[in-house]
Amino acid sequence: MKNRGRMNIPNIDLPRIIIIGAGFAGLNLAKKINSKRYQIVLIDKNNYHTFQPLMYQVASAGLEPDAISYPIRKVFRNKKNFYFRLASVDKINTKLQSIKTSLGNINYDQLVIATGAKNNFFGLESVEQNALPMKSLVESLNLRSKILENFELALNSTDTLEQNRLMNFVIVGGGPTGVELAGALGELKNKILPKDFPDLDLRKMHINLIEAAPKVLNVMSNNASINAEKFLRKLDVHVYTDTRVLNYDGTTVITDGKHNFEADTLIWAAGVSGAPINGLDVSSIERGNRIQVNEFNQLASSPNIYSIGDVSVIQTKNNSKGHPMLGSVAMQQGIHLAKNFNRITRGKSMVPFKYKDKGTMATIGRNLAVVDLPKLKFSGSIAWLIWMLVHLMLLVGFRNRALVFVNWTWNYFRYENGNRLIIRPFKRRMKKDKEKHAPAYSE
Amino acid sequence: MKNRGRMNIPNIDLPRIIIIGAGFAGLNLAKKINSKRYQIVLIDKNNYHTFQPLMYQVASAGLEPDAISYPIRKVFRNKKNFYFRLASVDKINTKLQSIKTSLGNINYDQLVIATGAKNNFFGLESVEQNALPMKSLVESLNLRSKILENFELALNSTDTLEQNRLMNFVIVGGGPTGVELAGALGELKNKILPKDFPDLDLRKMHINLIEAAPKVLNVMSNNASINAEKFLRKLDVHVYTDTRVLNYDGTTVITDGKHNFEADTLIWAAGVSGAPINGLDVSSIERGNRIQVNEFNQLASSPNIYSIGDVSVIQTKNNSKGHPMLGSVAMQQGIHLAKNFNRITRGKSMVPFKYKDKGTMATIGRNLAVVDLPKLKFSGSIAWLIWMLVHLMLLVGFRNRALVFVNWTWNYFRYENGNRLIIRPFKRRMKKDKEKHAPAYSE
Repeated sequence: MKNRGRMNIPNIDLPRIIIIGAGFAGLNLAKKINSKRYQIVLIDKNNYHTFQPLMYQVASAGLEPDAISYPIRKVFRNKKNFYFRLASVDKINTKLQSIKTSLGNINYDQLVIATGAKNNFFGLESVEQNALPMKSLVESLNLRSKILENFELALNSTDTLEQNRLMNFVIVGGGPTGVELAGALGELKNKILPKDFPDLDLRKMHINLIEAAPKVLNVMSNNASINAEKFLRKLDVHVYTDTRVLNYDGTTVITDGKHNFEADTLIWAAGVSGAPINGLDVSSIERGNRIQVNEFNQLASSPNIYSIGDVSVIQTKNNSKGHPMLGSVAMQQGIHLAKNFNRITRGKSMVPFKYKDKGTMATIGRNLAVVDLPKLKFSGSIAWLIWMLVHLMLLVGFRNRALVFVNWTWNYFRYENGNRLIIRPFKRRMKKDKEKHAPAYSE
Repeated sequence: MKNRGRMNIPNIDLPRIIIIGAGFAGLNLAKKINSKRYQIVLIDKNNYHTFQPLMYQVASAGLEPDAISYPIRKVFRNKKNFYFRLASVDKINTKLQSIKTSLGNINYDQLVIATGAKNNFFGLESVEQNALPMKSLVESLNLRSKILENFELALNSTDTLEQNRLMNFVIVGGGPTGVELAGALGELKNKILPKDFPDLDLRKMHINLIEAAPKVLNVMSNNASINAEKFLRKLDVHVYTDTRVLNYDGTTVITDGKHNFEADTLIWAAGVSGAPINGLDVSSIERGNRIQVNEFNQLASSPNIYSIGDVSVIQTKNNSKGHPMLGSVAMQQGIHLAKNFNRITRGKSMVPFKYKDKGTMATIGRNLAVVDLPKLKFSGSIAWLIWMLVHLMLLVGFRNRALVFVNWTWNYFRYENGNRLIIRPFKRRMKKDKEKHAPAYSE
């Protein structure tokens, strides 16, 4: 390990837990650990936590970044023995029990890897080079800039082919992210853009959602899938199931199905894989780049290293795939691991993690949502109201600023989205941002 | 002129007025022109108007960009014969009566240049290379990222010299922008950062305001200058008047005074010059790069070219320097020129522009503002309330969204600034942004 000096954290007479990543898993873990018994060091490459489920709203210009982000320091203001560091982590040295970060090395007693997921292009190089992902706030803002700029360019174009291409959007991946973004673009097309671009023929705008499985929202109930597709069509979204993207050169989307697409924008929402850190025992990295852990979220090879959230996978006989990569799993694992750490200080043994499925939901547009509860499945405007309520509660708890959400709800009801600002123009910026922001915590 | 094709604007049977720049001058002009009698083409390189007087609040993380920006298309939604184009303007061809833009060429009947001002470093190359300006929203966001990142780095530093340098801020320019930013940093130091960085010794943070004139707020009354300086000292700002910066290598600020400074951050608020467009008669460009116009804001060499706002200067026998480069002048000139255009359609002659000075104000911190009205000068908490009220009214009229401002006021009263998000890290990004954003409309 190249010596960059040591991270400046006081050495005190308490075991040190280092948590890498302040997503749903890491944040909730850090919140709940008893910091009278542990020193906590939380490391993230951003100084804010992102409420990922609403990121598509930033991309579609319905919400500003600050509405779904919250400064990490503010969350932990009154927590004792707690240290946040804005840094990236390069490598773990399991023998020395230390990690190498952009702010120097630091030793741990317990290490928790909660680095989440990154985009997975399944080896499609042309897609990786030319598609836009939406896995971070910066990527979402880049996507927004590109979408809005395309309409500005289309407005000035007299070349029909070029105009069509600029206004043709292909979204790959019919999971919640793809479906919600497609719906949001549908509402942009029908309710917002006609007011902003009265001299543009918006019938030329096409939103295409491509899904490899036979139905969208494949992880939800049949009912939810069918209704989601119905709602999407209502919002002018073309849905192509059983279709895979094979190539995208920045102009033409080649699929294995009947349709290819001439599109200037391809949005990748088709897959993620874990974002582990270098230095772990290779045998602990599973399919999908996730870190294999036991029911206590512990690595077999290093029992004082834990992993929670999207980057981890608990494989059991009954569930060989592990839990889905969802915010609710991450949140529950963070809280659960905190309880286990706290149990240890009271001389108790750890208890295994059990996921409690509280249901899944997706919103396609105003009054158009689908909800799967364990015992009840429904859709439409009541589902949408429940979706709003749940997110309202989550956001308020999370940032204590109901005002922004009220503002948003108000705009939402009036069919009047946010400000549609292109703060940083898209062109010629993308590549650099990709390099800087995409590879989560690894080198 | 290299042919990039033509801008796609319909040719109709009305004279075409092209307005370059959607700042206070251009925006108000476009709003007030009777578009039953003219076709209006408004060009800006951003798709939003910025409320510049509060930009320092974005830099100091008190406001998010969307609170002081408003989409141009939204302003003109119901205006007939109006065309907004997101483009940069390269050159004017006065003979052909056309301009060359990034979206192609376009002819004008009347042309209005309202391109505002850009940073002026008075030939100090080392300063231009290493200082941070604050003349655009992107520059303000870069500055915010740098300020916040410096505290993150200082927190981890064990080198006292480095720590001091990271927490030493030098602001050059004691005009309203410099004074208001210095005050905002003072409040950050005293009220906000101690909560965010409890383990950092914030007494090491120093805010230095350097002004070449013998007093700050040189254009305001003596009373205002004295009180502003008093308020600044109250907020821990060190004020150095009669001092000029000679050199800055990114580490040491050399001045012609008794003090040099070891500082990682130098913020340039000392000077602006006009940002005219290539192709104008050189003789019409005055000292400070401003376009010389007559009292009808007309160029002597080309009577169908007008210039308004910061980029223009009306020189008279009684006022050889012209009006100050202020938002209120720009606004009044925009409205006035619109009236003149409308008069022509009624067969009336144009009337000369007369500036109506409604007063000047600056806010240093909560309850600390100075106000110069034509007949009354005062300062303190009443001045601050008036400042708040005026900006509230201006913002509400401007964006019709009182909620954000209420939210802000609320935070303001609680000494709880905004979210302090570092959305785009500062490091290694600055240079590129500078190139892309600083030179307003010229090549």
